[in-house]
Amino acid sequence: MNEIYDVVIIGSGPAGMTAAVYAARADMKVLMLDKLAPGGQIINTNEINNYTGIQSINGAELAMQMFEHTQALGVGFDYRTVTRIEDCGKIKKIHCLEDDMVYEAKAVIIATGTRHRTLGLPTEDKWKGNGISWCAICDGEQYRGKDVVVIGGGNSAVEESLYLVGIVNSLTIVTMFDLTADPMVCDKLRANPKVKIYAYQDVLDFTGEDKLTGVHFKSTKTGEENTVQCDGVFEYIGLEPTTEFVEDLGILDRGYVVVNNRMETSVPGIYAAGDCIVKNLRQVITACGDGAIAAEEASHYVQKLEG
Amino acid sequence: MNEIYDVVIIGSGPAGMTAAVYAARADMKVLMLDKLAPGGQIINTNEINNYTGIQSINGAELAMQMFEHTQALGVGFDYRTVTRIEDCGKIKKIHCLEDDMVYEAKAVIIATGTRHRTLGLPTEDKWKGNGISWCAICDGEQYRGKDVVVIGGGNSAVEESLYLVGIVNSLTIVTMFDLTADPMVCDKLRANPKVKIYAYQDVLDFTGEDKLTGVHFKSTKTGEENTVQCDGVFEYIGLEPTTEFVEDLGILDRGYVVVNNRMETSVPGIYAAGDCIVKNLRQVITACGDGAIAAEEASHYVQKLEG
Repeated sequence: MNEIYDVVIIGSGPAGMTAAVYAARADMKVLMLDKLAPGGQIINTNEINNYTGIQSINGAELAMQMFEHTQALGVGFDYRTVTRIEDCGKIKKIHCLEDDMVYEAKAVIIATGTRHRTLGLPTEDKWKGNGISWCAICDGEQYRGKDVVVIGGGNSAVEESLYLVGIVNSLTIVTMFDLTADPMVCDKLRANPKVKIYAYQDVLDFTGEDKLTGVHFKSTKTGEENTVQCDGVFEYIGLEPTTEFVEDLGILDRGYVVVNNRMETSVPGIYAAGDCIVKNLRQVITACGDGAIAAEEASHYVQKLEG
Repeated sequence: MNEIYDVVIIGSGPAGMTAAVYAARADMKVLMLDKLAPGGQIINTNEINNYTGIQSINGAELAMQMFEHTQALGVGFDYRTVTRIEDCGKIKKIHCLEDDMVYEAKAVIIATGTRHRTLGLPTEDKWKGNGISWCAICDGEQYRGKDVVVIGGGNSAVEESLYLVGIVNSLTIVTMFDLTADPMVCDKLRANPKVKIYAYQDVLDFTGEDKLTGVHFKSTKTGEENTVQCDGVFEYIGLEPTTEFVEDLGILDRGYVVVNNRMETSVPGIYAAGDCIVKNLRQVITACGDGAIAAEEASHYVQKLEG
């Protein structure tokens, strides 16, 4: 016989961990599942400067503090890849890849966040993890004193570039539009003499035989083509939600989970929070806010089931 | 000539301060106004245990950390009591009580939160601040070894009671319903032999001539009347929004500001965030989330005005 959890939280980023804190404090029996280490995207963030009250903290460190917070409250944590949520009315069955494991819960909170989008170029697969990276903090060190290209111009691209530029010899940004990140951060980057920016460009190809040697791109304004020589590429061209495992529930809109202001999906007992939901601003502090709301509502739902 | 701010934030609790951090990081010229010290309600909160990543912190300490965060980003702060926001289209005029001062801003964020409700009894006014208190941390010490009554049964009543019970000789809770706070916290309180709880009671009167001597109440279930002798009373019977100064803008519903999920009111350029808006869960972390969204939207609005 499986034990039945009050609340199972899928994903352990800021949204999932805040949901865990709130659900545990509401006396719920709580389990958090994640295929990766707790923290979600913030693990790969060098410096977080907008978690109010903490002027500057390394993302992995904040992740650890949040995880310790959940552990002090007795929240369970298992490394699992969830493949499906089966809605059996008062019980939800959470199917996992590992050993075909199935967990049972009265309420589920989906907090799986987003993952990095790729360009979808044939030569991209060849260099994944071996020339092309999605994590400056993980892989930046191997390009110390070398030349790198960053693809993208949003917040992630710009922030990761700021980190990389302290390590590398030169940094070239190739982006589809202009830089769209916080003006303060963009200005800092533009002022760095190591940085060159190519705006309004389409990346066509990666060059190299035994190792990656360059990026080939074309201006969307003039049609001019360029190849920049480099030793490594970092891609930050946006995110996509990690929600394939709930496609059959009919709760998605272009991949993102649709919730109301109580973080309820259209399936009773299934809630969602954080970057994976339809929303305008995806930040650590807003994910945390969502998580608190989802947990509070899920806890009330469970208490009513029992009453 | 007045200088024109990009964003003026009214209120400096967690919502206002997070809005300040986000607006300042978006390169806005930001001013925060508050009639009291920065922090809002959390200044009077002994221990905060659900700001994810910080397992336990004194409210005043978190307030100070948040304020320092805003100051490091160059946010202005003035002690002011706002009496009215005048919508002049692209400019909002913020009228203040002090010296009839008027500030001008392109966008305004209302983050004034809530304040303590009172019972409205004739004998209540007599003992306000001299027998009846709304702040255990401020006034608890003067009841060391004495007998106190706490009126209310929600989160504030229960949490403040937990703080007081370590100081006083006896603590009697008189509440309209039963305890409705987090079960974990209620259990802790019920287990304390110094605590007596009267549930489902209507407070009728306060007794005493030269000093407060007791609370007189009546059961809403049996009609039985009781008087508990005490040296002091702490009232925690709910909150009401601090929004009188925007009554003429037509943006309120039962006193709370109506916003959409972008924290926009129906007046372009006026946003609201935190406990003063219509919402279900009023917590530090959810107020912060609101503040981030309001600031991001206000900054985009100001950038468009200029563009």
